[in-house]
Amino acid sequence: MSRTRIVAEPGKQEIVLVHEFDAPRELVFATANDPELLPEWWGPSSLTTIVDRMEVRPGGSWRVVHRDADGNEFAFRGVHHDVTEPERVIRTFEFEGAPGHVSLETAVFATVAGKTRLTTTSVYQSIEDRDAVLASGMEGGARETMERLAALVAKVH
Amino acid sequence: MSRTRIVAEPGKQEIVLVHEFDAPRELVFATANDPELLPEWWGPSSLTTIVDRMEVRPGGSWRVVHRDADGNEFAFRGVHHDVTEPERVIRTFEFEGAPGHVSLETAVFATVAGKTRLTTTSVYQSIEDRDAVLASGMEGGARETMERLAALVAKVH
Repeated sequence: MSRTRIVAEPGKQEIVLVHEFDAPRELVFATANDPELLPEWWGPSSLTTIVDRMEVRPGGSWRVVHRDADGNEFAFRGVHHDVTEPERVIRTFEFEGAPGHVSLETAVFATVAGKTRLTTTSVYQSIEDRDAVLASGMEGGARETMERLAALVAKVH
Repeated sequence: MSRTRIVAEPGKQEIVLVHEFDAPRELVFATANDPELLPEWWGPSSLTTIVDRMEVRPGGSWRVVHRDADGNEFAFRGVHHDVTEPERVIRTFEFEGAPGHVSLETAVFATVAGKTRLTTTSVYQSIEDRDAVLASGMEGGARETMERLAALVAKVH
């Protein structure tokens, strides 16, 4: 069973993702927000992840590219609204294949009973956008991404 | 009767604001996104509006301050995710008095029957945040802001 809880209530325009890590939140935050480590966990392991830009600071831009075995590329980008170490990152998120469809992602790192609970809330411009993301199979990718991050955190712990 | 339509359905986490201008959209877009003109229309006329920063480009930051007659200041800030002239601006929005509560604002400028329809959709991190904004009396401020912008557009037209 996946340790990642994904909540997407009918009729709402958000997806909430919760994962608990067996590590202090300073470490989870630092690992999750290190541009050099990103290729080791962001997205499915079947794809190559290339960090084109990752400015982890308020006002900083980011762009990450996924490349498959055939050389096809899928790019994602946005801007950081807020980076409050070690507790919160708020940023925009856009898949370049669907320009103009943007979500707002709030990642909160909280210490709960000695573990770190990462809650990522993505709000979309419409219910339709939210449902299209769910239909694209993001759930499997999100679970794999969280497991990969957990493994990386355990390694650097 | 106000010419601004404000839609905030119960149970949703968004507010939609629609206003039609008797002017070409290039002009409405240019007027609404000119940092030097902003103090003439943004917010209620009872407050002084000071543009601290307004970088109207993808990745650009913005910060605007309202000052009342007693010298009290209320600041708002965010980042521009996207600026596609003359049709769309997507940016984040935060009232500094409620840090961490951020919304995603999508402004679409469309030509409809010879007029320009500006539709601004704000999505919030939660229904509670959305409802708090409504309870704060934003509707009156938004209507006055749209009327002031319309008057300014008519003047420069």
